Amino acid sequence: MSENDAHDVIEVITAKRDGQVLTDSQIDWVVAAYTRGDVADEQMSALAMAILLNGMQRAEIARWTAAMIASGERMDFSSLSRPTADKHSTGGVGDKITLPLAPLVAACGVAVPQLSGRGLGHTGGTLDKLESIPGWRAALSNDEMLAQLEEVGAVVCAAGDGLAPADKKLYALRDVTGTVEAIPLIASSIMSKKIAEGTGSLVLDVKVGTGAFMKQVDQARELAETMVGLGQDAGVHTVALLTDMSTPLGRTAGNALEVRESVEVLAGGGPADVVELTVALAREMLAGAGHEDVDPADVLASGRAMDAWRAMIRAQDGDPDAELPTGRETHVVPAPATGTLSRLDAMAVGMAAWRLGAGRARKEDPVQAGAGVEWHARPGDEVREGEPLLTLHTDEPERFERALASLEGGYEIGASHEPGPLVIDRVAGAVR
Amino acid sequence: MSENDAHDVIEVITAKRDGQVLTDSQIDWVVAAYTRGDVADEQMSALAMAILLNGMQRAEIARWTAAMIASGERMDFSSLSRPTADKHSTGGVGDKITLPLAPLVAACGVAVPQLSGRGLGHTGGTLDKLESIPGWRAALSNDEMLAQLEEVGAVVCAAGDGLAPADKKLYALRDVTGTVEAIPLIASSIMSKKIAEGTGSLVLDVKVGTGAFMKQVDQARELAETMVGLGQDAGVHTVALLTDMSTPLGRTAGNALEVRESVEVLAGGGPADVVELTVALAREMLAGAGHEDVDPADVLASGRAMDAWRAMIRAQDGDPDAELPTGRETHVVPAPATGTLSRLDAMAVGMAAWRLGAGRARKEDPVQAGAGVEWHARPGDEVREGEPLLTLHTDEPERFERALASLEGGYEIGASHEPGPLVIDRVAGAVR
Repeated sequence: MSENDAHDVIEVITAKRDGQVLTDSQIDWVVAAYTRGDVADEQMSALAMAILLNGMQRAEIARWTAAMIASGERMDFSSLSRPTADKHSTGGVGDKITLPLAPLVAACGVAVPQLSGRGLGHTGGTLDKLESIPGWRAALSNDEMLAQLEEVGAVVCAAGDGLAPADKKLYALRDVTGTVEAIPLIASSIMSKKIAEGTGSLVLDVKVGTGAFMKQVDQARELAETMVGLGQDAGVHTVALLTDMSTPLGRTAGNALEVRESVEVLAGGGPADVVELTVALAREMLAGAGHEDVDPADVLASGRAMDAWRAMIRAQDGDPDAELPTGRETHVVPAPATGTLSRLDAMAVGMAAWRLGAGRARKEDPVQAGAGVEWHARPGDEVREGEPLLTLHTDEPERFERALASLEGGYEIGASHEPGPLVIDRVAGAVR
Repeated sequence: MSENDAHDVIEVITAKRDGQVLTDSQIDWVVAAYTRGDVADEQMSALAMAILLNGMQRAEIARWTAAMIASGERMDFSSLSRPTADKHSTGGVGDKITLPLAPLVAACGVAVPQLSGRGLGHTGGTLDKLESIPGWRAALSNDEMLAQLEEVGAVVCAAGDGLAPADKKLYALRDVTGTVEAIPLIASSIMSKKIAEGTGSLVLDVKVGTGAFMKQVDQARELAETMVGLGQDAGVHTVALLTDMSTPLGRTAGNALEVRESVEVLAGGGPADVVELTVALAREMLAGAGHEDVDPADVLASGRAMDAWRAMIRAQDGDPDAELPTGRETHVVPAPATGTLSRLDAMAVGMAAWRLGAGRARKEDPVQAGAGVEWHARPGDEVREGEPLLTLHTDEPERFERALASLEGGYEIGASHEPGPLVIDRVAGAVR
């Protein structure tokens, strides 16, 4: 029996279906066989559903992750003169944190090799945001990436096809088979790419709330603990923050809109929550890379993070001084009453931004650089009836109607607001 | 929104994944969309796994069955001058019962329209057995079938492609995705074909034991109750017998070997268990068709069942007087000790017959007409050390080794034998 037919796919599917723990050999075989096409999509989707419903133990998830990493190339940043740290967010509305964070951490002496994706659905993608900067390009060769990390200290670019191809194939399959919502598969998908990317330390921003994939704290904590465990098992220093995503971050959701807000943060201004989360994540990244002695708040105030931003954008052919695109049409939503904005729902805002053209429904769709939503008040702020509460931006005014429909019931004006913490919890590696 | 995109497949998959009851509209849509190719195999296999793990309520199974029937044509035997009754077995080793049963019931005045399949795996197929008769053909047109039912009263032939094509497609998918063992899907698969076939009444022989698909009585009873319910809901008088399949039926497992044994039963001889089960099932079929007044044991003894058999074989171009094929090579297994044969395992015998060439591994494989296993004692019989216990038949002597390996541990000789009942239970329709 050759190694290729060491297992039978039915044996692997039925083992998980019947609640058994998959062996290392079964996992290695099924992931490799799926990647090379010997296990068919209909077989992998049945296995994915069985994993979703019956779960996986920590050791199984670690092995599954390792098998996905082994399906492709691994990057190596060990030749760099400084340590590396990366951040991954599970996706939120108005989540532009990578934009100020990567140059901030670079300015603190730690290299940030951030391989990012494009957005799908109501949460925007970091590459889509940066592509609103004239000239900026997402595709870099590995050599370009390494050189930029050494010279500038921060890279945000598109992940190449070589990293974890098994994950690429499986992710596309899960998307069409109702098997996205499986913590073992979510965790191994994220971590296989981050571990293959070769970062020395990693901070996970696990979003929780209406605008996040995980609506409940318990689910988010389980995902965070699973991913932190996987990082540990792979020798990557990993910490997760659970952060609120019931309210969108900052004051804008869109592509150029969020770049503008990020530049405000780098200039020492910007919304308080974006600053708070950027600094909190930077502290974790610096600690993970052994640079606890640097205070990112000081570096942000010094202007050195802005310098790093400009260098990072220029290194990828972008013009940091260019005017950013704006939507050709705007529509103002006035406050319906006077009082305190007691709720602004992240999902409602995310859907509206998406429908205005900031996001895409299919991965081949284009996005509008200038589209999105701007909110003039955050929960807790006082508003006056008739004054602007939201401004919608798009190039295509026919999009306003559906965007407004998404916003229905998405905000409330009342007597008061009970603020919750932005950083809900921190999950670090346990002793094994 | 057109009827075709009334539902989204992800919505249907996630509903079942999350333990919800599918609506009639969701079921109708997903079965029809899968049949026409708008739902992909990888989507249907994820749904099948979710059904396997989360189950379906009786009303869901009934609707699923109806949707599969609606995917194809329905046959209609209402023009016949006599009532119709059919039998379906869930598959066992040495299960040749259809061969004497169909002509016996026909000889009692009830027409038997039996659409059968070929064997896959360790249980043989009725068509494979009959095809060992020189000249006999399995393929009949609907008109030929109707004419033969009127003239002879019994037809055993291949199911056409027009009946429940959704089931045909789904069955092939389940076979390669580890989703065979779902009672809702097994029950709806069997019953969709039987209801579409148009029989007026139906008797189910649900096998239980080592050689059966259902190893436990509880599982078998659940399957039986589900199928009886589906029959009732569709207006088909349906009864199920749970029968023992820990010991193989009769004294032979193979194609021509089982035809020979069936002819012995029709001639008034044959193994007692085959006679007992044939008569028990015949009584149920006659009762279901309103012919309780005829005793099939009398008809069997009268020779009229044999006449019906000969007519049935001749009508499909077979020669009932032709010599049946025999395997070119035989290998005798002697009894290893003197005592009582206390156990003869159905699965071991079934696997041995399969490996000798009586069955197929892939649906396009040929079968050997003469291959199989003959056992010279049944549990409870006395055996003497060194005397023949089993005879293996095949055209290819290189097959003996693996067949003998299947038989290892498959029989025991001891001091005594505790016989259990052949018919374990009867499941009839409950008041709804």
